[in-house]
Amino acid sequence: MPDAVAPNLVAAVDAARHWRDMMAMAEIGGFIDEAGHPGVNRPCLSPLDRQARRLLISWAEKAGLGVSVDRLGNLFLRHEGSAPGLAPVLTGSHMDSQPNGGRFDGIWGVIAGLEAVRALREAGVATKRPIEVVAWTNEEGGRYAPGCMGSMAYAGFAPPDTWDDVTDRDGIRWADALAEQLALEADIARRPLGVVEGQAPFAYVEAHIEQGPLLEAKEMDIGVVTGIQGSRWFVVELKGKSDHAGTTPLAMRKDAVQDMLRAINALNALMHDPKDVLRFTVASIEVQPNTSNSVAGLVRFTIDFRHPDNAVLQARGNAIEGVIQAAVRDCAVKVTERFHAVPVTFQPEVPDAVEAAARAQGLRHMRLPSGAFHDSQFMVPLCPTGMIFVPCRAGVSHHPSEYATPEALAAGARVLAQVLADLANR
Amino acid sequence: MPDAVAPNLVAAVDAARHWRDMMAMAEIGGFIDEAGHPGVNRPCLSPLDRQARRLLISWAEKAGLGVSVDRLGNLFLRHEGSAPGLAPVLTGSHMDSQPNGGRFDGIWGVIAGLEAVRALREAGVATKRPIEVVAWTNEEGGRYAPGCMGSMAYAGFAPPDTWDDVTDRDGIRWADALAEQLALEADIARRPLGVVEGQAPFAYVEAHIEQGPLLEAKEMDIGVVTGIQGSRWFVVELKGKSDHAGTTPLAMRKDAVQDMLRAINALNALMHDPKDVLRFTVASIEVQPNTSNSVAGLVRFTIDFRHPDNAVLQARGNAIEGVIQAAVRDCAVKVTERFHAVPVTFQPEVPDAVEAAARAQGLRHMRLPSGAFHDSQFMVPLCPTGMIFVPCRAGVSHHPSEYATPEALAAGARVLAQVLADLANR
Repeated sequence: MPDAVAPNLVAAVDAARHWRDMMAMAEIGGFIDEAGHPGVNRPCLSPLDRQARRLLISWAEKAGLGVSVDRLGNLFLRHEGSAPGLAPVLTGSHMDSQPNGGRFDGIWGVIAGLEAVRALREAGVATKRPIEVVAWTNEEGGRYAPGCMGSMAYAGFAPPDTWDDVTDRDGIRWADALAEQLALEADIARRPLGVVEGQAPFAYVEAHIEQGPLLEAKEMDIGVVTGIQGSRWFVVELKGKSDHAGTTPLAMRKDAVQDMLRAINALNALMHDPKDVLRFTVASIEVQPNTSNSVAGLVRFTIDFRHPDNAVLQARGNAIEGVIQAAVRDCAVKVTERFHAVPVTFQPEVPDAVEAAARAQGLRHMRLPSGAFHDSQFMVPLCPTGMIFVPCRAGVSHHPSEYATPEALAAGARVLAQVLADLANR
Repeated sequence: MPDAVAPNLVAAVDAARHWRDMMAMAEIGGFIDEAGHPGVNRPCLSPLDRQARRLLISWAEKAGLGVSVDRLGNLFLRHEGSAPGLAPVLTGSHMDSQPNGGRFDGIWGVIAGLEAVRALREAGVATKRPIEVVAWTNEEGGRYAPGCMGSMAYAGFAPPDTWDDVTDRDGIRWADALAEQLALEADIARRPLGVVEGQAPFAYVEAHIEQGPLLEAKEMDIGVVTGIQGSRWFVVELKGKSDHAGTTPLAMRKDAVQDMLRAINALNALMHDPKDVLRFTVASIEVQPNTSNSVAGLVRFTIDFRHPDNAVLQARGNAIEGVIQAAVRDCAVKVTERFHAVPVTFQPEVPDAVEAAARAQGLRHMRLPSGAFHDSQFMVPLCPTGMIFVPCRAGVSHHPSEYATPEALAAGARVLAQVLADLANR
């Protein structure tokens, strides 16, 4: 089957239904930005997140799938195989969005999984192995950092209680928000947590918009993802002293904003990369007391640092704290690493299956690594893993102007359907 | 009288009562910071602000003073003179605090005014002119910028509806918050708004902690304030584009945080002053979307720039926008000036009266300008104006560790009492 088109399966992927589902889901947390772009703001473990999950569950139940949830809130929709005891093929992504994010990031991989499974069932394509569509909890990390908590806990990458005391901006603890959600979803069957309490999947495949400009620029339909660059996230706290902005001579200040400037100037030098492969971003800043006429007594800022080469990721990442310590003048420095994912290369099985399906369906495809991290990263130690990318307009993501065409999404869902049928019959 | 001690008046200032009043008031909005310092967080037009005003009114009524409020919420406590038609001597300050501010800034000038008037009445010192103690609305500008709205409107510096559409961080409009407060204080007699609708005062004298280190360092009891340095406040908005931090090459970004860095680096150069007289502060920063893995699409930051020399204040302040425009690389720049107060020099009448009273009472005193701005700034065009400073520990203000001793405050209130008696009999 890998190299043969399954014509009835491909035809059963309903492009119009798939787009309708995407647009219906985008209304939950939907908003229009200043420029008129329709964005989505759907934080994990929020009422909007739960509303989106209920909509997904209603579709899954209508399609005859079994629904269950684990103790991290990861949500599973199960298509039964003819050999139900075999390890399932897992597909999916996440349903939470960035604050003021787009309509496709994450949610498309979940809805594409549902559409692919519906197509399999409607086309009467039997599979030996079960297929499960998963919606991982908190991939984005926008409300609770770090992201990928659901998949990390599933994979045993970190104990499930690791983030209990993490708080959101309103001071709500992760553990409390999660307990609230589980209580509100007590009617859904509970399942063991991934490999920690249960079974490893047979394979994992995640469909996602590229979130980069390459596929569009090269006029490709399908990206065969070969791996994911490494990411390290840090929070830097600079503790100075608040003083009256009108009376305190600059020489007597411990101004945390000025020390932040010194720190980021030095980090820009550390992270300089003429090839523009390295990604270094300071994107979140908190100032206290944050009033214009009181010198800043405290600043916290984040560092998002990524590189495909683990040697660079380790060397420059490990240099961050020393560079900041040397750069600041007046403040006490605290650097906390809160996320560290080394670069991964996918085993060949899933990328080969994706490539074979794209070729069989006559789609233009290319191999490429992922610049963004994904839940798939944490599946690599568990089972053969891969991803399917589709192009998105101008490579834009994490923004209301994020867009992928109905045709691009349908092509991705068709490839996914064939890959799932292939893997689930091995 | 100016050079004579009024022994019964000085004795009537009750240091213990004065300190008790200060500490009782500090409980309204009071909190203890991490280091154990007792701070105050009392935003203007808040329930805490109203609670503080009610406490002050209860004291004023007990002392036999007349209470009234104008359409900006400025609150007046009136000691009647033997010639009630004459222009009153005005004293006071403000009751709002900085976010996480101290227990003395502003509120001391109001309570010192009350204590001085109580002492006059208890000592039976008659005055020809009325004396009014004023609590100006929103001096700090912490909740609604700019500060000094109440005194600016009183003095006709700006029309009273100038700030109607200014919003706080919760999006509440100034006009709505003010209307709410006036409705809740409808039982208080309404009076005309300053020189806009009524009469100019005969003189204005404001008691305040120094908020700087000079008096303490020179072991002085009383600062005879000669004037106030000029202030200009700006808000800078940098509009870039939010993108995925993992996938977007740095060369393709419009990163508002990086342009903020370029802007402040350039401003630091513009504002460099080897003599450390110039005050340049960036103390409030807002980033959107402010999530660690989405490139910042928008940054707003504030500039607080002060100088005693108007030529420097104008030249460097006017250069700010051009310097930022030249420094940024990718963002659209919008610079808005939201406060502009030129340096003022007080006319000699009030400083001379303060100096005479301090000398008569045997207090160590010195002349000095104010680094902070104050409501008194806007009284200068209306009438002879001046201020009385008392030392505060290490010059710290706008912080919970702000402190002045009971003895220092009592000395200040005694000088104020004598100055009021002097001016109100001219």
